[in-house]
Amino acid sequence: MTFGGAMEFSGLQKNRSFYMPELPSALQKKAMQLQFGDATAVPDPSDAQAVSRSFPLTYGQRLVHFLSSSFGIRDSQFLTEHPVMRIGVVFCGRQSPGGHNIIYGLYDAIKTHNRRSTLIGFCGGTEGLFEQKTIEITENIVLAYRNQGGYDMLGRTKDQIRTTEQVHAALNTCQTLDLDGLVIIGGVTSHTDAAQLAETFAELKCQTKVVGVPVTLYGDLKNQFVEANVGFDTICKVNAQLISNLCTDALSAEKYYYFIRLMGRKASHVALECAHQCKPNMVILSEEVASSKLTLFDITKRICDAVEARAEQGKYHGVILLPEGLIESIPEVHALLQEIHGLYRKGVSVDKIASQLSPWASALFEFLPSFIKEELLLSPDSDESAPLSQIETEKLLAQLVEIEMDTRSKSGRYKGKKFNSICHFFGYQARGSLPSKFDCDYAYAMMTVKRLHGPRVSLIGKPSIHPAAINLKGKAYEMMLHDAEKLLMDDLYRNPGPLQFEGPGSDSKTISLTVEQKDYIGKIKELQDYLDKVKMIVKPGCSQEVLKVALSSMACFINILSLMSPHTTEGHTL
Amino acid sequence: MTFGGAMEFSGLQKNRSFYMPELPSALQKKAMQLQFGDATAVPDPSDAQAVSRSFPLTYGQRLVHFLSSSFGIRDSQFLTEHPVMRIGVVFCGRQSPGGHNIIYGLYDAIKTHNRRSTLIGFCGGTEGLFEQKTIEITENIVLAYRNQGGYDMLGRTKDQIRTTEQVHAALNTCQTLDLDGLVIIGGVTSHTDAAQLAETFAELKCQTKVVGVPVTLYGDLKNQFVEANVGFDTICKVNAQLISNLCTDALSAEKYYYFIRLMGRKASHVALECAHQCKPNMVILSEEVASSKLTLFDITKRICDAVEARAEQGKYHGVILLPEGLIESIPEVHALLQEIHGLYRKGVSVDKIASQLSPWASALFEFLPSFIKEELLLSPDSDESAPLSQIETEKLLAQLVEIEMDTRSKSGRYKGKKFNSICHFFGYQARGSLPSKFDCDYAYAMMTVKRLHGPRVSLIGKPSIHPAAINLKGKAYEMMLHDAEKLLMDDLYRNPGPLQFEGPGSDSKTISLTVEQKDYIGKIKELQDYLDKVKMIVKPGCSQEVLKVALSSMACFINILSLMSPHTTEGHTL
Repeated sequence: MTFGGAMEFSGLQKNRSFYMPELPSALQKKAMQLQFGDATAVPDPSDAQAVSRSFPLTYGQRLVHFLSSSFGIRDSQFLTEHPVMRIGVVFCGRQSPGGHNIIYGLYDAIKTHNRRSTLIGFCGGTEGLFEQKTIEITENIVLAYRNQGGYDMLGRTKDQIRTTEQVHAALNTCQTLDLDGLVIIGGVTSHTDAAQLAETFAELKCQTKVVGVPVTLYGDLKNQFVEANVGFDTICKVNAQLISNLCTDALSAEKYYYFIRLMGRKASHVALECAHQCKPNMVILSEEVASSKLTLFDITKRICDAVEARAEQGKYHGVILLPEGLIESIPEVHALLQEIHGLYRKGVSVDKIASQLSPWASALFEFLPSFIKEELLLSPDSDESAPLSQIETEKLLAQLVEIEMDTRSKSGRYKGKKFNSICHFFGYQARGSLPSKFDCDYAYAMMTVKRLHGPRVSLIGKPSIHPAAINLKGKAYEMMLHDAEKLLMDDLYRNPGPLQFEGPGSDSKTISLTVEQKDYIGKIKELQDYLDKVKMIVKPGCSQEVLKVALSSMACFINILSLMSPHTTEGHTL
Repeated sequence: MTFGGAMEFSGLQKNRSFYMPELPSALQKKAMQLQFGDATAVPDPSDAQAVSRSFPLTYGQRLVHFLSSSFGIRDSQFLTEHPVMRIGVVFCGRQSPGGHNIIYGLYDAIKTHNRRSTLIGFCGGTEGLFEQKTIEITENIVLAYRNQGGYDMLGRTKDQIRTTEQVHAALNTCQTLDLDGLVIIGGVTSHTDAAQLAETFAELKCQTKVVGVPVTLYGDLKNQFVEANVGFDTICKVNAQLISNLCTDALSAEKYYYFIRLMGRKASHVALECAHQCKPNMVILSEEVASSKLTLFDITKRICDAVEARAEQGKYHGVILLPEGLIESIPEVHALLQEIHGLYRKGVSVDKIASQLSPWASALFEFLPSFIKEELLLSPDSDESAPLSQIETEKLLAQLVEIEMDTRSKSGRYKGKKFNSICHFFGYQARGSLPSKFDCDYAYAMMTVKRLHGPRVSLIGKPSIHPAAINLKGKAYEMMLHDAEKLLMDDLYRNPGPLQFEGPGSDSKTISLTVEQKDYIGKIKELQDYLDKVKMIVKPGCSQEVLKVALSSMACFINILSLMSPHTTEGHTL
């Protein structure tokens, strides 16, 4: 396989390759102001000690805010000021739309500051990193892949820098190639690896700075500092197109229930966002199931009740979304999987596992249809979770619902027509998509984002970054719950249509992001309203008492805020 | 279920609903010239007698060509000239993008000629036609669905007007509602039904004219008079988007072979068109397999040889397209299916079928994996073909290839990495798509196209329209064959991207159509060149001999052409 080679483009690909991503205003000028903020922290304070012990050199660095420079600094100052840099970049983890634009942005950024800086790509993912398989990324290569989908400029393989051997191979490569920086483009597990690598490099006084860039179609690498991941916007749009086509299809033929499983690993971000975009009849989120401890029986019953209620209105079609992580979040299946994976770790061979299960797990296992038994027995992924993309939860549920509806029909409770289902798994067919405008822009601008912090302690005591789950108290989930009954019964399907690059729809953002941003900005707005009210009250002509109370209150208040965020008043111009 | 109700639109849906389809120039003016052409004929002359015997009243009507009127007729003449008409319309057959625009075009056409004309929609397909479930199609309904996907304005059900009971129910409806015309929107089998209905209506002197409109995503209702079917363009574009995403994915991860089965029923038009648009490594067409009598073993070997050759170049990924009709075109499987369906017709119950197969069919059946056994035993569709959408040929081939690669590996012949595959079936997720600009325009203009002719005699002696197969001597297939070796080895993947409504790509046509049109128009051009040459030679100053030879040759030539196409010189202005 040759990397970095030019492909034959379709008209649209060609057109996209000329698209110039838009930068946020703060990054449009070469002069910008950096403001140091708080130290990075772990989401759960009880993890702080363990994390800081594991990452003594890298934990707790301060956040950097990029602001438009308020000083008049000439461009020329920058072009001469920056030293020559050698940066390595590697794709690590599943291909996600926008990955190529990270490299495009990185290339433009380092070349803008010094033409003699070099960008080195590792071919074939982490294997290329360990074995020093490199190509120098030239302008021609960047132009051939900008705004294009996939990871085929460099390819990817194992997606892992974890064992001592692997870490040392990476170290050796960085030192041999004399790299100033190593950029790791990846998702949750790649960022755990990147954090570990950064700590090891710091410990061994290796000069290479490790930078992780959150690119994951699952959208599960977000926190208070990172609102979205590169690729999520495109993935949701492509999947939403297909889901809404099935909604239209269901409504036209009126005889099928579509059970659609969506990629997304443990978290249900893709499923929730697609539900917002398409308004199907039902979506069952993993986080919801785990939190309410819904059993397989509960979920089946919930769907059957819906089918029954719709049949009473003469409706025999519907669309139900399921995240791929659902299977792991069902308590009894979770326990069964834990046992299976435990036996795997003990070296029990696949054909012996079923016979060594506990009586309880065995009873559940025997109850399940044979196709799902085979899938549950597949060996776990490298992060010890079940191989979710291969477990056909949609078929399992469709089958259980069919059996239950037949029972209800025989007992005379259900009087409608026979229940029919068609199952789909949407995942692979979206991953290689041309990135949306949002992802092109966001990825291109990402070059400046520094490595994320915020690892959490996992159960076995080894700190690692966990995927962000859906916030069941958040706006996006709340909105969905609010409309659930109407969506279930009234077929309020919405069709966002295929991903557009020009004209209407091309600038749309994901609904989850819009809603969450509204919330954040809404609160800042609320605070500003309070400040304005104070100004209105405490103005020339107000009484001495009012002035006195206001002054002392504000002094105390500023004191508290300063203690909570000690660095926010300092500024630094880059 | 309420039909004709307004939905909540996304931004793109709203925008599309304002799109005004473009009409061909001949239809843009209200005045147009009709030219009567040859009598319609069957493609195979040996069928003519049987067809004319079955359709004595409707077979052999003359073709009508629409030309821009060369006479200056005022618009007002038309608006007053046309009588009030009552037209019924019914969706019959699988939902196909553009179906709503047929109704939109029909509505505009009849209202343009007389505001008091009425368009009546039958709700729930042919069932609605039999039971006289109707709604009057108003401007509001048309506006709510124009340029939108699906068939949900009216829905569809059985897709059949075949039994004496059904035909009489349709007749009764048309007479009760006093319809001047009945428009049947559908594919191959619906057109057989429509032809039969037209003949019966003519026989019984029913005043309702039956009109069939070729709307089928399979693209298999084409002949010398109909170059394309409504829906085919959209379906190919949506599928091509997904296939090319998988190509990019394969190239990024470099570890999977994607086996993709495409909807299309017996014919492979969708697969061939998608192969042209995406350039995957391999496409196996049903027509090719049937014509070369390739066995399951041959096809498996062909794929394994390709996997082996690619592995020698270090390539462990690939994309292979399969039409859903493939399974029926493999000779030994075809024979097995014939036996199974024969036993079905004899009333043998499913669980007894396997034991009653002939020894030869039984041997093949026992060799097959259990999932495909179950699928082959499914009851046949209403047109007596296997339920193709439910037979997972892609999984069968992937499994056979895996077994064969393991054997080659054990024998030491194959030295590469383990073969991995992921299977997909693309069909349902494209059917409900927003129609492409091409399909919006084409469907809107279709209102003026009269019922197709060209039924062929089927094996059991009952005339029916057969799906058009890929022409293995045609340009589109030839182009594909020509590049097959390069496409197989060199990963020349092309990504047409998602369906666009504005900007680049929004005006693209299917490659099959472009190629076929080129051929046709190319030949007409060639003829015109000859005529020009004659003009150049036979001009004032040429010898008497030349003039004499030219005159007598042309007179004879015109004579022959006139005898072959007796009506083409007459004109008639509408």
